[in-house]
Amino acid sequence: MVSPYEKNINNEEKNALANLAVSLVKNKTIIGLGSGSTIGFFLEHLAVRMKEEKLQLKFIASSNKIAEQADKLNLQLIGIEDVPFIDQAFDGADRVDLNNNLIKGGGGSLFRERQVLLKAEQRYILADSSKFTKSLLGQIIPLEIVPFNASFTIKRIESLGYNIALRKDGDNNFITDNGNWIADVSTQKSVSPADIYEQLKLMSGVVEIGLFLNVDYYILQT
Amino acid sequence: MVSPYEKNINNEEKNALANLAVSLVKNKTIIGLGSGSTIGFFLEHLAVRMKEEKLQLKFIASSNKIAEQADKLNLQLIGIEDVPFIDQAFDGADRVDLNNNLIKGGGGSLFRERQVLLKAEQRYILADSSKFTKSLLGQIIPLEIVPFNASFTIKRIESLGYNIALRKDGDNNFITDNGNWIADVSTQKSVSPADIYEQLKLMSGVVEIGLFLNVDYYILQT
Repeated sequence: MVSPYEKNINNEEKNALANLAVSLVKNKTIIGLGSGSTIGFFLEHLAVRMKEEKLQLKFIASSNKIAEQADKLNLQLIGIEDVPFIDQAFDGADRVDLNNNLIKGGGGSLFRERQVLLKAEQRYILADSSKFTKSLLGQIIPLEIVPFNASFTIKRIESLGYNIALRKDGDNNFITDNGNWIADVSTQKSVSPADIYEQLKLMSGVVEIGLFLNVDYYILQT
Repeated sequence: MVSPYEKNINNEEKNALANLAVSLVKNKTIIGLGSGSTIGFFLEHLAVRMKEEKLQLKFIASSNKIAEQADKLNLQLIGIEDVPFIDQAFDGADRVDLNNNLIKGGGGSLFRERQVLLKAEQRYILADSSKFTKSLLGQIIPLEIVPFNASFTIKRIESLGYNIALRKDGDNNFITDNGNWIADVSTQKSVSPADIYEQLKLMSGVVEIGLFLNVDYYILQT
Protein backbone atom coordinates (compact mmCIF):
# COMPACT_ATOMS: atom_id res chain seq x y z
CA MET A 1 0.00 0.00 0.00
CA VAL A 2 1.98 2.96 -1.28
CA SER A 3 0.42 6.29 -0.37
CA PRO A 4 1.48 9.32 -2.38
CA TYR A 5 1.61 11.15 0.96
CA GLU A 6 4.54 10.87 3.32
CA LYS A 7 3.66 9.35 6.62
CA ASN A 8 3.94 11.65 9.61
CA ILE A 9 5.79 9.60 12.19
CA ASN A 10 5.10 12.04 15.00
CA ASN A 11 3.29 9.48 17.10
CA GLU A 12 3.13 11.75 20.13
CA GLU A 13 0.89 14.14 18.23
CA LYS A 14 -1.24 11.32 16.86
CA ASN A 15 -1.67 9.90 20.35
CA ALA A 16 -2.80 13.29 21.65
CA LEU A 17 -5.31 13.60 18.78
CA ALA A 18 -6.54 10.06 19.36
CA ASN A 19 -7.09 10.80 23.06
CA LEU A 20 -9.01 13.96 22.23
CA ALA A 21 -11.23 12.00 19.83
CA VAL A 22 -11.76 9.17 22.32
CA SER A 23 -13.03 11.69 24.89
CA LEU A 24 -15.81 12.67 22.45
CA VAL A 25 -17.22 9.17 22.03
CA LYS A 26 -20.66 8.71 23.54
CA ASN A 27 -21.86 5.48 25.13
CA LYS A 28 -24.37 3.16 23.38
CA THR A 29 -23.70 4.49 19.90
CA ILE A 30 -22.68 3.28 16.46
CA ILE A 31 -19.17 4.47 15.60
CA GLY A 32 -17.92 4.81 12.02
CA LEU A 33 -14.21 4.15 11.57
CA GLY A 34 -12.11 5.77 8.90
CA SER A 35 -8.75 4.32 7.99
CA GLY A 36 -5.12 5.31 8.41
CA SER A 37 -2.58 5.32 11.19
CA THR A 38 -4.26 8.02 13.33
CA ILE A 39 -7.49 6.02 13.40
CA GLY A 40 -5.39 3.04 14.43
CA PHE A 41 -4.23 5.00 17.50
CA PHE A 42 -7.80 6.16 18.14
CA LEU A 43 -9.06 2.59 18.15
CA GLU A 44 -6.39 1.40 20.57
CA HIS A 45 -7.12 4.18 23.04
CA LEU A 46 -10.87 3.73 22.66
CA ALA A 47 -10.61 0.02 23.44
CA VAL A 48 -8.92 0.94 26.74
CA ARG A 49 -11.64 3.46 27.63
CA MET A 50 -14.38 0.98 26.68
CA LYS A 51 -12.94 -1.56 29.09
CA GLU A 52 -12.52 0.94 31.92
CA GLU A 53 -15.98 2.49 31.55
CA LYS A 54 -17.79 -0.58 30.19
CA LEU A 55 -18.95 1.35 27.12
CA GLN A 56 -21.32 -0.38 24.71
CA LEU A 57 -20.31 0.53 21.18
CA LYS A 58 -20.72 -1.01 17.75
CA PHE A 59 -18.37 -0.25 14.90
CA ILE A 60 -18.60 0.13 11.13
CA ALA A 61 -15.29 -0.11 9.28
CA SER A 62 -14.29 1.74 6.11
CA SER A 63 -11.56 -0.72 5.16
CA ASN A 64 -10.67 -4.35 5.62
CA LYS A 65 -7.50 -3.20 7.39
CA ILE A 66 -9.24 -1.21 10.11
CA ALA A 67 -11.82 -4.03 10.43
CA GLU A 68 -9.00 -6.46 11.16
CA GLN A 69 -7.62 -4.15 13.83
CA ALA A 70 -11.05 -3.77 15.45
CA ASP A 71 -11.44 -7.53 15.36
CA LYS A 72 -8.10 -8.03 17.12
CA LEU A 73 -9.24 -5.62 19.85
CA ASN A 74 -12.43 -7.70 20.24
CA LEU A 75 -14.65 -4.79 19.21
CA GLN A 76 -18.09 -5.54 17.78
CA LEU A 77 -18.22 -4.88 14.04
CA ILE A 78 -21.50 -4.55 12.17
CA GLY A 79 -22.24 -3.99 8.48
CA ILE A 80 -23.00 -0.53 7.13
CA GLU A 81 -26.32 -1.90 5.83
CA ASP A 82 -27.32 -2.97 9.36
CA VAL A 83 -28.12 0.57 10.55
CA PRO A 84 -30.07 3.50 9.09
CA PHE A 85 -27.38 5.93 10.25
CA ILE A 86 -24.06 6.15 12.10
CA ASP A 87 -23.89 8.27 15.28
CA GLN A 88 -20.29 9.42 15.17
CA ALA A 89 -17.64 8.88 12.50
CA PHE A 90 -13.93 9.40 13.14
CA ASP A 91 -11.52 9.62 10.24
CA GLY A 92 -8.17 11.05 9.22
CA ALA A 93 -7.16 13.15 6.22
CA ASP A 94 -4.12 13.55 4.01
CA ARG A 95 -4.55 17.28 3.58
CA VAL A 96 -6.83 19.95 5.09
CA ASP A 97 -6.98 23.42 3.54
CA LEU A 98 -8.02 26.74 5.08
CA ASN A 99 -11.67 26.13 4.08
CA ASN A 100 -11.71 22.67 5.68
CA ASN A 101 -11.67 20.99 2.29
CA LEU A 102 -10.01 17.60 2.60
CA ILE A 103 -7.93 15.30 0.47
CA LYS A 104 -8.35 11.69 1.50
CA GLY A 105 -7.54 8.35 -0.02
CA GLY A 106 -3.81 8.06 0.54
CA GLY A 107 -4.57 4.61 1.92
CA GLY A 108 -6.91 3.82 -0.97
CA SER A 109 -10.15 3.57 1.05
CA LEU A 110 -11.67 6.83 -0.19
CA PHE A 111 -14.95 5.30 -1.35
CA ARG A 112 -15.87 3.53 1.87
CA GLU A 113 -14.55 6.39 3.97
CA ARG A 114 -16.89 8.76 2.16
CA GLN A 115 -19.84 6.41 2.59
CA VAL A 116 -19.19 6.11 6.32
CA LEU A 117 -18.87 9.89 6.67
CA LEU A 118 -22.01 10.52 4.57
CA LYS A 119 -24.04 8.20 6.77
CA ALA A 120 -22.81 9.75 10.03
CA GLU A 121 -24.66 12.35 12.09
CA GLN A 122 -21.40 13.74 13.51
CA ARG A 123 -18.12 13.68 11.62
CA TYR A 124 -14.72 14.18 13.24
CA ILE A 125 -11.52 14.52 11.23
CA LEU A 126 -8.29 13.91 13.14
CA ALA A 127 -5.57 16.00 11.51
CA ASP A 128 -2.05 16.34 12.88
CA SER A 129 -0.04 19.46 12.11
CA SER A 130 1.61 17.91 9.03
CA LYS A 131 -1.76 17.75 7.23
CA PHE A 132 -2.64 21.43 7.09
CA THR A 133 -2.02 23.36 3.90
CA LYS A 134 -3.08 26.77 2.65
CA SER A 135 -4.57 25.41 -0.57
CA LEU A 136 -5.13 22.04 -2.23
CA LEU A 137 -3.68 23.41 -5.47
CA GLY A 138 -1.08 21.09 -6.95
CA GLN A 139 -1.66 18.40 -4.31
CA ILE A 140 -2.13 14.78 -5.30
CA ILE A 141 -5.76 13.64 -5.41
CA PRO A 142 -6.53 9.91 -5.38
CA LEU A 143 -9.24 8.59 -7.72
CA GLU A 144 -10.93 5.22 -7.64
CA ILE A 145 -11.36 3.99 -11.22
CA VAL A 146 -12.93 0.93 -12.83
CA PRO A 147 -10.26 -1.48 -14.18
CA PHE A 148 -12.13 -2.19 -17.44
CA ASN A 149 -10.65 0.11 -20.14
CA ALA A 150 -8.69 1.98 -17.42
CA SER A 151 -5.85 2.98 -19.76
CA PHE A 152 -8.38 4.86 -21.88
CA THR A 153 -9.94 6.50 -18.82
CA ILE A 154 -6.44 7.62 -17.82
CA LYS A 155 -5.80 8.96 -21.31
CA ARG A 156 -9.04 10.97 -21.18
CA ILE A 157 -8.11 12.42 -17.79
CA GLU A 158 -4.65 13.36 -19.10
CA SER A 159 -6.26 15.11 -22.04
CA LEU A 160 -7.99 17.41 -19.53
CA GLY A 161 -4.57 18.59 -18.33
CA TYR A 162 -4.01 16.36 -15.31
CA ASN A 163 -0.91 14.41 -14.40
CA ILE A 164 -1.99 10.91 -13.53
CA ALA A 165 -0.29 7.73 -12.31
CA LEU A 166 -1.84 4.36 -11.60
CA ARG A 167 -1.03 3.41 -8.02
CA LYS A 168 1.04 0.26 -7.58
CA ASP A 169 1.21 -2.26 -4.77
CA GLY A 170 4.56 -3.89 -5.52
CA ASP A 171 4.43 -5.11 -9.12
CA ASN A 172 0.63 -5.11 -9.33
CA ASN A 173 -1.98 -2.41 -9.46
CA PHE A 174 -3.31 -1.42 -6.07
CA ILE A 175 -6.80 -2.93 -5.67
CA THR A 176 -9.48 -1.25 -3.54
CA ASP A 177 -11.97 -3.06 -1.30
CA ASN A 178 -14.48 -2.54 -4.15
CA GLY A 179 -12.20 -4.36 -6.61
CA ASN A 180 -11.25 -1.17 -8.42
CA TRP A 181 -7.93 0.61 -9.00
CA ILE A 182 -6.50 3.86 -7.66
CA ALA A 183 -5.03 6.59 -9.87
CA ASP A 184 -3.28 9.58 -8.30
CA VAL A 185 -3.85 12.86 -10.16
CA SER A 186 -2.57 16.38 -9.84
CA THR A 187 -2.80 19.56 -11.81
CA GLN A 188 -0.79 22.76 -11.78
CA LYS A 189 -3.71 24.70 -13.27
CA SER A 190 -5.53 27.08 -10.97
CA VAL A 191 -8.78 25.14 -10.72
CA SER A 192 -10.98 25.12 -7.62
CA PRO A 193 -11.37 21.83 -5.73
CA ALA A 194 -15.10 21.93 -6.52
CA ASP A 195 -14.44 22.18 -10.26
CA ILE A 196 -11.88 19.37 -10.13
CA TYR A 197 -14.35 17.21 -8.25
CA GLU A 198 -17.10 17.86 -10.75
CA GLN A 199 -14.96 17.42 -13.84
CA LEU A 200 -13.51 14.12 -12.70
CA LYS A 201 -16.59 12.60 -11.06
CA LEU A 202 -18.59 13.21 -14.24
CA MET A 203 -16.15 11.06 -16.24
CA SER A 204 -17.21 7.55 -17.08
CA GLY A 205 -14.78 5.15 -15.41
CA VAL A 206 -14.25 7.33 -12.33
CA VAL A 207 -16.02 5.91 -9.26
CA GLU A 208 -14.82 8.22 -6.51
CA ILE A 209 -12.63 11.27 -5.92
CA GLY A 210 -10.46 11.83 -2.86
CA LEU A 211 -11.74 15.40 -2.47
CA PHE A 212 -14.13 15.90 0.45
CA LEU A 213 -15.84 19.27 0.09
CA ASN A 214 -18.88 21.02 1.55
CA VAL A 215 -19.46 18.49 4.28
CA ASP A 216 -19.86 19.39 7.94
CA TYR A 217 -16.78 18.19 9.74
CA TYR A 218 -15.31 18.94 13.10
CA ILE A 219 -11.59 19.15 12.43
CA LEU A 220 -9.74 17.92 15.52
CA GLN A 221 -6.22 19.26 15.91
CA THR A 222 -3.67 19.38 18.67
CA MET B 1 -31.72 -10.75 -16.35
CA VAL B 2 -34.90 -8.70 -16.04
CA SER B 3 -34.85 -5.58 -18.19
CA PRO B 4 -37.30 -2.83 -17.30
CA TYR B 5 -37.94 -2.55 -21.05
CA GLU B 6 -40.23 -4.89 -22.88
CA LYS B 7 -38.51 -6.95 -25.50
CA ASN B 8 -39.50 -6.23 -29.08
CA ILE B 9 -40.03 -9.66 -30.57
CA ASN B 10 -40.25 -8.34 -34.12
CA ASN B 11 -37.33 -10.43 -35.31
CA GLU B 12 -37.91 -9.56 -38.94
CA GLU B 13 -37.12 -5.92 -38.23
CA LYS B 14 -34.09 -6.85 -36.13
CA ASN B 15 -32.80 -9.07 -38.92
CA ALA B 16 -33.14 -6.24 -41.42
CA LEU B 17 -31.29 -3.88 -39.09
CA ALA B 18 -28.59 -6.47 -38.46
CA ASN B 19 -28.09 -6.93 -42.20
CA LEU B 20 -27.82 -3.19 -42.72
CA ALA B 21 -25.19 -2.98 -39.97
CA VAL B 22 -23.26 -5.98 -41.33
CA SER B 23 -23.01 -4.28 -44.73
CA LEU B 24 -21.14 -1.38 -43.04
CA VAL B 25 -18.40 -3.52 -41.52
CA LYS B 26 -14.97 -2.93 -43.04
CA ASN B 27 -12.37 -5.65 -43.46
CA LYS B 28 -9.28 -5.85 -41.23
CA THR B 29 -10.74 -3.81 -38.42
CA ILE B 30 -11.42 -4.02 -34.70
CA ILE B 31 -15.15 -4.27 -34.02
CA GLY B 32 -16.73 -3.25 -30.71
CA LEU B 33 -19.80 -5.24 -29.75
CA GLY B 34 -22.62 -3.87 -27.65
CA SER B 35 -25.09 -6.21 -26.00
CA GLY B 36 -28.73 -7.12 -26.44
CA SER B 37 -30.77 -9.20 -28.84
CA THR B 38 -30.26 -7.00 -31.91
CA ILE B 39 -26.49 -7.27 -31.54
CA GLY B 40 -26.98 -11.03 -31.27
CA PHE B 41 -28.62 -11.01 -34.71
CA PHE B 42 -25.88 -8.71 -36.03
CA LEU B 43 -23.19 -11.11 -34.86
CA GLU B 44 -24.85 -14.13 -36.48
CA HIS B 45 -25.19 -12.39 -39.83
CA LEU B 46 -21.68 -11.00 -39.63
CA ALA B 47 -20.24 -14.46 -39.01
CA VAL B 48 -21.85 -15.59 -42.27
CA ARG B 49 -20.44 -12.63 -44.21
CA MET B 50 -16.99 -13.17 -42.69
CA LYS B 51 -16.95 -16.77 -43.92
CA GLU B 52 -18.17 -15.87 -47.38
CA GLU B 53 -15.78 -12.96 -47.87
CA LYS B 54 -12.96 -14.24 -45.66
CA LEU B 55 -13.01 -11.04 -43.61
CA GLN B 56 -10.35 -10.59 -40.95
CA LEU B 57 -11.94 -9.00 -37.90
CA LYS B 58 -11.19 -8.88 -34.21
CA PHE B 59 -13.88 -8.26 -31.62
CA ILE B 60 -14.17 -6.51 -28.27
CA ALA B 61 -17.17 -7.48 -26.18
CA SER B 62 -19.15 -5.25 -23.81
CA SER B 63 -20.62 -8.14 -21.81
CA ASN B 64 -19.80 -11.69 -20.89
CA LYS B 65 -22.99 -12.76 -22.65
CA ILE B 66 -22.05 -11.33 -26.05
CA ALA B 67 -18.50 -12.64 -25.56
CA GLU B 68 -19.90 -16.15 -25.14
CA GLN B 69 -21.92 -15.80 -28.33
CA ALA B 70 -18.87 -14.55 -30.25
CA ASP B 71 -16.90 -17.45 -28.87
CA LYS B 72 -19.51 -19.96 -30.05
CA LEU B 73 -19.31 -18.44 -33.54
CA ASN B 74 -15.50 -18.90 -33.43
CA LEU B 75 -14.88 -15.17 -33.69
CA GLN B 76 -11.59 -13.79 -32.38
CA LEU B 77 -12.08 -11.84 -29.15
CA ILE B 78 -9.44 -9.48 -27.81
CA GLY B 79 -9.33 -7.39 -24.64
CA ILE B 80 -10.27 -3.72 -24.69
CA GLU B 81 -6.82 -2.94 -23.27
CA ASP B 82 -5.15 -4.65 -26.26
CA VAL B 83 -5.86 -1.79 -28.68
CA PRO B 84 -5.50 2.00 -28.55
CA PHE B 85 -8.88 2.43 -30.26
CA ILE B 86 -11.79 0.50 -31.78
CA ASP B 87 -12.60 1.03 -35.46
CA GLN B 88 -16.34 0.47 -35.48
CA ALA B 89 -18.71 -0.17 -32.58
CA PHE B 90 -22.21 -1.58 -33.04
CA ASP B 91 -24.72 -1.41 -30.23
CA GLY B 92 -28.43 -1.33 -29.50
CA ALA B 93 -30.50 1.03 -27.38
CA ASP B 94 -33.58 0.82 -25.20
CA ARG B 95 -34.85 4.26 -26.16
CA VAL B 96 -33.84 6.92 -28.72
CA ASP B 97 -35.33 10.40 -28.52
CA LEU B 98 -35.72 13.05 -31.24
CA ASN B 99 -32.27 14.49 -30.39
CA ASN B 100 -30.60 11.07 -30.65
CA ASN B 101 -30.20 10.87 -26.88
CA LEU B 102 -30.19 7.24 -25.84
CA ILE B 103 -31.23 5.19 -22.87
CA LYS B 104 -29.19 2.03 -22.58
CA GLY B 105 -28.59 -0.56 -19.89
CA GLY B 106 -31.76 -2.63 -20.00
CA GLY B 107 -29.45 -5.63 -20.13
CA GLY B 108 -27.27 -4.23 -17.34
CA SER B 109 -24.09 -3.75 -19.41
CA LEU B 110 -24.25 0.04 -19.56
CA PHE B 111 -20.74 0.62 -18.19
CA ARG B 112 -18.86 -1.57 -20.63
CA GLU B 113 -21.13 -0.55 -23.50
CA ARG B 114 -20.21 3.08 -22.84
CA GLN B 115 -16.52 2.28 -22.66
CA VAL B 116 -16.65 0.41 -25.97
CA LEU B 117 -18.54 3.28 -27.62
CA LEU B 118 -16.17 5.90 -26.16
CA LYS B 119 -13.16 4.09 -27.54
CA ALA B 120 -14.66 3.67 -31.03
CA GLU B 121 -13.94 5.89 -34.03
CA GLN B 122 -17.34 5.11 -35.56
CA ARG B 123 -20.43 4.31 -33.52
CA TYR B 124 -23.57 2.67 -34.91
CA ILE B 125 -26.75 2.27 -32.89
CA LEU B 126 -29.23 -0.30 -34.19
CA ALA B 127 -32.71 0.82 -33.18
CA ASP B 128 -35.89 -0.92 -34.28
CA SER B 129 -39.11 1.06 -34.51
CA SER B 130 -40.18 0.17 -30.95
CA LYS B 131 -37.24 2.13 -29.50
CA PHE B 132 -38.07 5.61 -30.77
CA THR B 133 -39.73 8.07 -28.43
CA LYS B 134 -40.36 11.79 -28.56
CA SER B 135 -38.72 12.46 -25.21
CA LEU B 136 -36.90 10.52 -22.52
CA LEU B 137 -39.07 12.18 -19.87
CA GLY B 138 -40.52 9.64 -17.45
CA GLN B 139 -38.60 6.74 -18.99
CA ILE B 140 -36.69 4.30 -16.81
CA ILE B 141 -32.97 4.97 -16.62
CA PRO B 142 -30.66 2.21 -15.37
CA LEU B 143 -27.85 3.13 -12.96
CA GLU B 144 -24.86 1.05 -11.97
CA ILE B 145 -24.24 1.50 -8.25
CA VAL B 146 -21.63 0.24 -5.79
CA PRO B 147 -23.10 -2.44 -3.45
CA PHE B 148 -21.39 -1.05 -0.31
CA ASN B 149 -23.94 1.17 1.48
CA ALA B 150 -26.28 0.89 -1.53
CA SER B 151 -29.46 1.31 0.53
CA PHE B 152 -28.19 4.72 1.62
CA THR B 153 -27.25 5.67 -1.95
CA ILE B 154 -30.78 4.72 -2.98
CA LYS B 155 -32.24 6.82 -0.15
CA ARG B 156 -30.19 9.83 -1.27
CA ILE B 157 -31.37 9.41 -4.86
CA GLU B 158 -34.99 9.14 -3.70
CA SER B 159 -34.56 12.35 -1.71
CA LEU B 160 -33.78 14.10 -5.02
CA GLY B 161 -37.26 13.16 -6.26
CA TYR B 162 -36.55 10.00 -8.24
CA ASN B 163 -38.41 6.71 -8.12
CA ILE B 164 -35.86 3.97 -7.77
CA ALA B 165 -35.88 0.17 -7.63
CA LEU B 166 -32.97 -2.19 -7.22
CA ARG B 167 -32.97 -4.62 -10.14
CA LYS B 168 -33.43 -8.27 -9.26
CA ASP B 169 -32.25 -11.44 -10.96
CA GLY B 170 -34.58 -13.97 -9.40
CA ASP B 171 -34.25 -13.63 -5.63
CA ASN B 172 -30.87 -11.91 -5.75
CA ASN B 173 -29.72 -8.50 -6.81
CA PHE B 174 -28.67 -8.31 -10.43
CA ILE B 175 -24.84 -8.17 -10.56
CA THR B 176 -22.98 -6.39 -13.35
CA ASP B 177 -19.79 -7.60 -15.01
CA ASN B 178 -18.00 -5.07 -12.77
CA GLY B 179 -19.45 -6.68 -9.62
CA ASN B 180 -21.85 -3.80 -9.00
CA TRP B 181 -25.65 -3.58 -8.81
CA ILE B 182 -28.24 -1.98 -11.10
CA ALA B 183 -30.92 0.42 -9.89
CA ASP B 184 -33.67 1.57 -12.26
CA VAL B 185 -34.74 5.17 -11.76
CA SER B 186 -37.38 7.43 -13.20
CA THR B 187 -38.73 10.88 -12.52
CA GLN B 188 -41.90 12.65 -13.52
CA LYS B 189 -40.27 16.05 -13.07
CA SER B 190 -39.47 17.98 -16.21
CA VAL B 191 -35.70 17.69 -16.04
CA SER B 192 -33.45 17.53 -19.09
CA PRO B 193 -31.52 14.30 -19.71
CA ALA B 194 -28.28 16.30 -19.33
CA ASP B 195 -29.29 17.54 -15.88
CA ILE B 196 -30.36 14.07 -14.78
CA TYR B 197 -27.05 12.67 -15.98
CA GLU B 198 -25.07 15.29 -14.12
CA GLN B 199 -27.06 15.11 -10.90
CA LEU B 200 -26.83 11.33 -10.67
CA LYS B 201 -23.28 10.85 -11.92
CA LEU B 202 -22.02 13.35 -9.33
CA MET B 203 -23.44 11.22 -6.50
CA SER B 204 -21.04 9.08 -4.54
CA GLY B 205 -22.02 5.46 -5.05
CA VAL B 206 -23.18 5.91 -8.64
CA VAL B 207 -20.72 4.43 -11.15
CA GLU B 208 -22.57 4.82 -14.42
CA ILE B 209 -25.81 6.18 -15.89
CA GLY B 210 -27.73 4.62 -18.74
CA LEU B 211 -28.10 7.98 -20.48
CA PHE B 212 -25.93 8.40 -23.57
CA LEU B 213 -25.90 12.05 -24.61
CA ASN B 214 -23.81 14.30 -26.82
CA VAL B 215 -21.95 11.51 -28.52
CA ASP B 216 -21.66 11.11 -32.28
CA TYR B 217 -23.76 8.14 -33.26
CA TYR B 218 -25.10 6.91 -36.54
CA ILE B 219 -28.59 5.71 -35.68
CA LEU B 220 -29.44 2.79 -37.94
CA GLN B 221 -33.16 2.22 -38.48
CA THR B 222 -35.27 0.23 -40.90
